[in-house]
Order: sequence, then structure tokens, then C-alpha cells
Amino acid sequence: MADASLNALIEALRRLPGVGVKSASRMAFHLLQHDREGAQHLAQALQQATTRVRHCSLCNTFTEQEVCPTCLDPQRDATKLCVVETPADQAAVERTAAYRGRYFVLMGKLSPLDGIGPRDIGLAKLFERALDGVVQEVILATNFTAEGEATAHVIGETLKQRGLKVTRLARGVPAGSELEYVDLGTIAHALVDRR
Amino acid sequence: MADASLNALIEALRRLPGVGVKSASRMAFHLLQHDREGAQHLAQALQQATTRVRHCSLCNTFTEQEVCPTCLDPQRDATKLCVVETPADQAAVERTAAYRGRYFVLMGKLSPLDGIGPRDIGLAKLFERALDGVVQEVILATNFTAEGEATAHVIGETLKQRGLKVTRLARGVPAGSELEYVDLGTIAHALVDRR
Repeated sequence: MADASLNALIEALRRLPGVGVKSASRMAFHLLQHDREGAQHLAQALQQATTRVRHCSLCNTFTEQEVCPTCLDPQRDATKLCVVETPADQAAVERTAAYRGRYFVLMGKLSPLDGIGPRDIGLAKLFERALDGVVQEVILATNFTAEGEATAHVIGETLKQRGLKVTRLARGVPAGSELEYVDLGTIAHALVDRR
Repeated sequence: MADASLNALIEALRRLPGVGVKSASRMAFHLLQHDREGAQHLAQALQQATTRVRHCSLCNTFTEQEVCPTCLDPQRDATKLCVVETPADQAAVERTAAYRGRYFVLMGKLSPLDGIGPRDIGLAKLFERALDGVVQEVILATNFTAEGEATAHVIGETLKQRGLKVTRLARGVPAGSELEYVDLGTIAHALVDRR
């Protein structure tokens, strides 16, 4: 496989997250042998997305407009702001149909070990958004990982000082699970947060 | 994530082998948030490969030229022809440095269950290549799977009838392995093929 454009394609595919050299070769082989139309299609989709997709000026998620459809929806409760790490997390909260407020998407999380600080995830934009005078409650829905917890802590402390109500998603036993198989940390949290 | 170009990108990435909707979303998110340059780069590589890469007229592998560099190499023994399923398999044989003959790359294997017959993997091109009068031995190096064995059988029978010497890669115990942990079928083959 000594050909320049084939090698270039494999190298380009390797930049995708979770794709090593074997997967990249298999992908390139599949596209060239069985799905050249799909390859052309992907090339166009990449071009289009990279030129058109930008960040919503209100909630920071990906959108092609100045303001995303969720932020434009007048039915949503503007007094509540749910902070999530990624659009995928936002989609997960949306699927519950248990929340009808607004969102702010961090597009990342604080991660000092990787050199990602408050500026890299645009916390200034969040603070501006949360302190617009309409928002009354900020719901921290960052992940329950070390980085997610740290991010929630930093945001929560800052916003509490400014007089906002700050809440965090409840920690506890997952729905449908048996206590015997739930890890100790989760049970301990569920005990502390009992109601 | 209701945006048209973002959804189009996720759908296009899902056509890659081994990529489901979650991986595709993660890839799209990564490219748009952290590596737009990589996305542009991949789009160009896809365009270039799909327009430039075609099949070597002699060995059928991917190449940008009429004939690939391996087939053009005058140092290689033209009396031996090694038949492999894919360019990746060819690369594996090359890495051994134990073979200096020529190759034919099927770009597939017979798979009746998937409706892939002799015509779909271009066996006619192989037969024409093998019966050029120069080739004396055809080494069948298709995979040792059900489909690979069937493919080797069909090719072998046809070429033997035409008077060519046909060999198959030896089956046996992998180098460095302990008999205790080798599967029974492999040990049985190694016994039958002992030398």
C-alpha cells in the first residue's frame, strides 16, 4: 500500500478519535472498494460542517444560526439554566423530557492535568449568560467524574457568590438497579442525600 | 443537536465500518470542537483518494498508476504468484521478508451467503494473470476462515486443471505458542501436515 493518496487518506482517518492505524486502513479500504459514493458524501459533509457550524451566541452549542433552535423556543423556562459539558449530554437530558428550561453547553470541562483551565472552556461566556438578570436557578449537570465535579464546583462557587440559586443533579442509586450490585460510593452518596 | 450539517456529518461518518451513532457523534464533536483543520484535511484526502486511486492492471491492488510499484519491481520472481484477499494481507506477507515473488490481490473473498460469487471478486482477472505463461506456481494465501478456504479451493481447482503448480500457506502451530493453549483444530492440522 505504497500509494500517496491512499496513505494520506489513512493518516487523515487516524486523526479521528478512537481510530488507530488498523481501523483507519480498514476504513480506507472499505470506502475505496465498496463505497466511493459514501467517501465523496463524507468529504462534502466535512466541508459543509466545518464551514457552516459555529457556536450559539446564547448557549454555546453547535448551530448554523446565530442562536440555536432550543434558545429560540419561547416555550422554555428562561429562569432555569442547565449547564452540561457537551451537546451529547444536552441530548441525554432532553430525552428525559423532565426539563423544560434553557441550557448552557460548556463544550468541555476543567482539566488542569491536560492544561484546560476556565478560559479554555469559556466560563466567562457562561457567567455572562447566567447573570443576565432573568436566570434564577443554575442546574449543574456536568458529568460525575473528577473533572466534571471540579467544573461544577468552580462554576457553583462563583455563581453562589453572585447570589444565584445553584443546584446539582442528584447523586444516588440508578433506576432499576439492585443494591447488591451498586458500588459503595454510590450507596454512600444515596445515604447522605436521602430524602 | 438539531442542525442540518451536523446531522449530515454524523450520518456520513456512520457509513464508516465499525462506527455506530455514538462513535459518529463523538467524532463529529471532536472534529468541530478541537480539529477543524483535521476535518478539512480528511475531506481533501477523501476527495483525492476517490478520484485518483484505481486498481493495478496486473495485481489488482490499489494504486494511482496503471501498474503498481510492486508489479514494476524487476527484482521480483515473476514465476511465483501469491494470491491474497486484501492489500492489508499483502502487507502482512511483505513484512515477513520471506517472499520475493509477485502478488494478486483479490480485493475480497467468495462469500455465497452474502451473495459474493466469482464474478464479484474478479476471478477472471486472476486466471488471466496466472495463465500468462510466465507464472509457474500460485501460492494461495487467502485467510484461514471458511470463506478464505472456499476461495482458495475454487481458485486452486481451476488452476490445477490448467496445469499450474498450486500451493497453500502451511497450517500449523503458531510460532512461540505452547501446545497446551493451542486449539485442537490447529494441532490436528499440524499433525496431518507434519514434515
